[in-house]
Amino acid sequence: MTNSDSDQPISPSLRWVDENHQACLDGLLDYLRIPSVSTDPAYGDEVARCSRYLDDELRRIGLESRIVETEGHPLVVAERIKSPELPTVLFYGHYDVQPPDPLELWTSPPFEPRVEDGKIFARGATDDKGQSWAHVKAVEAILATAGDLPVNVRFLVEGEEESGGEAIEHFVRASAEELRSDCVVISDSSMYAPGQPSLLYGLKGLLYMEMLVTGPDRDLHSGSYGGALTNPLNALAQIVGALRDPRTGKVLIPGFYDDVRDLEAWEREQFAALPFDEKDYCDSIGISETFGEEGFTTLERVWARPTCDVNGIWGGYQGAGAKTVIAAHGGAKVSMRLVPDQDPKVLAKAFEAYVRDVAPVGVDVAVSVHSDALPVRFDVEGPFMDAAQEALKQVWGRPAVKVREGGSIPIVQTFSEVLDVPVLLIGFGLSDDCLHAPNEKFGVENFYQGIRTTVRLLELMGEQAGAGQS
Amino acid sequence: MTNSDSDQPISPSLRWVDENHQACLDGLLDYLRIPSVSTDPAYGDEVARCSRYLDDELRRIGLESRIVETEGHPLVVAERIKSPELPTVLFYGHYDVQPPDPLELWTSPPFEPRVEDGKIFARGATDDKGQSWAHVKAVEAILATAGDLPVNVRFLVEGEEESGGEAIEHFVRASAEELRSDCVVISDSSMYAPGQPSLLYGLKGLLYMEMLVTGPDRDLHSGSYGGALTNPLNALAQIVGALRDPRTGKVLIPGFYDDVRDLEAWEREQFAALPFDEKDYCDSIGISETFGEEGFTTLERVWARPTCDVNGIWGGYQGAGAKTVIAAHGGAKVSMRLVPDQDPKVLAKAFEAYVRDVAPVGVDVAVSVHSDALPVRFDVEGPFMDAAQEALKQVWGRPAVKVREGGSIPIVQTFSEVLDVPVLLIGFGLSDDCLHAPNEKFGVENFYQGIRTTVRLLELMGEQAGAGQS
Repeated sequence: MTNSDSDQPISPSLRWVDENHQACLDGLLDYLRIPSVSTDPAYGDEVARCSRYLDDELRRIGLESRIVETEGHPLVVAERIKSPELPTVLFYGHYDVQPPDPLELWTSPPFEPRVEDGKIFARGATDDKGQSWAHVKAVEAILATAGDLPVNVRFLVEGEEESGGEAIEHFVRASAEELRSDCVVISDSSMYAPGQPSLLYGLKGLLYMEMLVTGPDRDLHSGSYGGALTNPLNALAQIVGALRDPRTGKVLIPGFYDDVRDLEAWEREQFAALPFDEKDYCDSIGISETFGEEGFTTLERVWARPTCDVNGIWGGYQGAGAKTVIAAHGGAKVSMRLVPDQDPKVLAKAFEAYVRDVAPVGVDVAVSVHSDALPVRFDVEGPFMDAAQEALKQVWGRPAVKVREGGSIPIVQTFSEVLDVPVLLIGFGLSDDCLHAPNEKFGVENFYQGIRTTVRLLELMGEQAGAGQS
Repeated sequence: MTNSDSDQPISPSLRWVDENHQACLDGLLDYLRIPSVSTDPAYGDEVARCSRYLDDELRRIGLESRIVETEGHPLVVAERIKSPELPTVLFYGHYDVQPPDPLELWTSPPFEPRVEDGKIFARGATDDKGQSWAHVKAVEAILATAGDLPVNVRFLVEGEEESGGEAIEHFVRASAEELRSDCVVISDSSMYAPGQPSLLYGLKGLLYMEMLVTGPDRDLHSGSYGGALTNPLNALAQIVGALRDPRTGKVLIPGFYDDVRDLEAWEREQFAALPFDEKDYCDSIGISETFGEEGFTTLERVWARPTCDVNGIWGGYQGAGAKTVIAAHGGAKVSMRLVPDQDPKVLAKAFEAYVRDVAPVGVDVAVSVHSDALPVRFDVEGPFMDAAQEALKQVWGRPAVKVREGGSIPIVQTFSEVLDVPVLLIGFGLSDDCLHAPNEKFGVENFYQGIRTTVRLLELMGEQAGAGQS
């Protein structure tokens, strides 16, 4: 292995990685030079050009690749199927990037990659071109040295991840048979800490609601009418304020916790063993103290306990100074992050019933669902998870920690549901990589380690398959 | 009197009003043609021109009048002092008007007065040019027929009432001796119902606060951080929701009711005797039912019980769709309408202390005062009030009802405090006059009745003074 502490002999494909450092990097830098900003129509041609760059590269290294046009930006779909007997790995990634704004905060231009101090600075460096490119280079390394792959591979790389496009969702659902695989590998997340390999095995679901509270048929003068009617904004605050118990941090919607799967003992132990400094955490976001559901640690709350957050609230006069108005209506956006086995469809009904129940007389409350997503939690046992853990341990020189995350990644839920296979979420980025922000970066060594990890993952899967066949 | 049911002989000055109907109206229409929009600098010259028009008219009818330049728009200050032995009446009004927007909703141009169906349609028709002009015409009627006035009169007419200018406040405080009067007469309000003369004897005070709730030092991703910290918008809703008991409608700020003067028995009787249809009231503002402090009627709540209304609330994402954000801060504007003997200075402290007390851990709460005004309640006994009641009864043919109002009129508070005299609030408008809205109107007959009432008021005050002297 390349890890200096290791005495194991280096494999030909890993040697290839070491010998082709510069070429691997150069290809990524060219990839990063294409401003594939998916959300801004002005970049439409560049997004298309970026898909062609990737398609060409996948074909060049020896895969069958094609561009799938969609109603939005194209998908790049590639495969190399050696044998139906072998397991198939589907690599997912996205070639589009966030807008680079605000430009003036970048030290160097976002689409002119700069390598400095062991880091690649560019929009998309870590999210997700750099991480996804590591998969491509790993496949190239094996093909260049062994002539073939130890398992079947597919690539499915989209161009709308940053713009919320639904092309991939439709494609996966429509092409479930064509995409049939035994596991999905995604590198679009961060490691728990520098040098600490991490396996992400759980993501929260989401239920994003909006409520609109309506009272009188127009804005009223608060002097002429104050006291006579339920003020929609007082009502709104009262309803929203009733969602959580301010003392215990518990969500008060009846039945909210009914289907929550308890944290397992090993999870609590694992989380508790992770380096986590409460003071540093508070300092990093400028708060005086953490607060959350009683009986749980901060990591448990964020990763594995359901939450209820107001994302927006509005109504009446928001400008400078004073306006003596009773607003006709006000509203709030409220989202709940869910954990297994909570069902957003069930909770949407419970939310609405509760909101109507606590609403005072004299106002109408309209409730709607913006989006929902099921929580996922993958089994941390099993051959693919074992291979991932072994690959991470060999390449990084220490065991991976198993972590969960508070966010949702809709495509993961879709893969899990439609393909019904484990998804290996193996991030090589760091939490300070400034994704979605100016001066996005990706460590050069993280990039190479990402290639090496992916090489070993494929090789180990192949060995497992061979052992299984023998 | 002009009232058809009355058998009393008509006085020369009232006959003058009848004989000069058209001239009185024409002068008002010219006054209304001047677009004296005080809040928009583009109309600055027109506001000045309007002050000159009024100044000229006051001089023409026989008063000493002058224009007082201020840091804002000018004041028109006039007087006719017959004798220091006689009582002095100060007429307050404002010659500026609200902006006419939205123009497209006007049936005819706002500054081209249209008289149709017994109503004058124009911006300022009722608020306050028409009502204030009635005072001018009443003084003219008496001077034209009797050659002199039965009492001393002053006029103080401002050009910043609709733009919240403070020129008049400064002028009254600086000129208390010069303005010395025995009562103030203001016609800038509405009658309780058509044909029902009304005397307004109480106005609420005001305490208008703003609170800003701050949590993390930047907006956070609700997936990455949800559950770990007090969300400022959840906190905001909880704090605002704690201001009132949703069941009893009581304000929960400790000490809030300590200094509230109870409604007197005659007030409750008088209010209860007024025609008030709860269903019509609800229909007029599009609500299903009224709601307010338990133990009080709707009129009592609006006129004579303190309130607490959210006027604005904001924070986080308010656009279309969903954004998974924990906002760094949110805020709310909250105003309390106060009744005698509540003190806004005391309650501002109580409000802040309560807000801090109910605020959850992990957020900062900043509280500020936008404005405050003392409540006023005038004695309904006394010679000037008696004269006003008698004048109203004679002219309208029925006794005036004594009413209070939920709004504040800062200049009334100032007159009450600085001049320390009763303020007679005698409105001739109607609640459907569309003040501040398109198609503002003022009944032609209300205008004439306003002149007649003011004539009789001055004459009766003179008779009282004469009787007192004899």
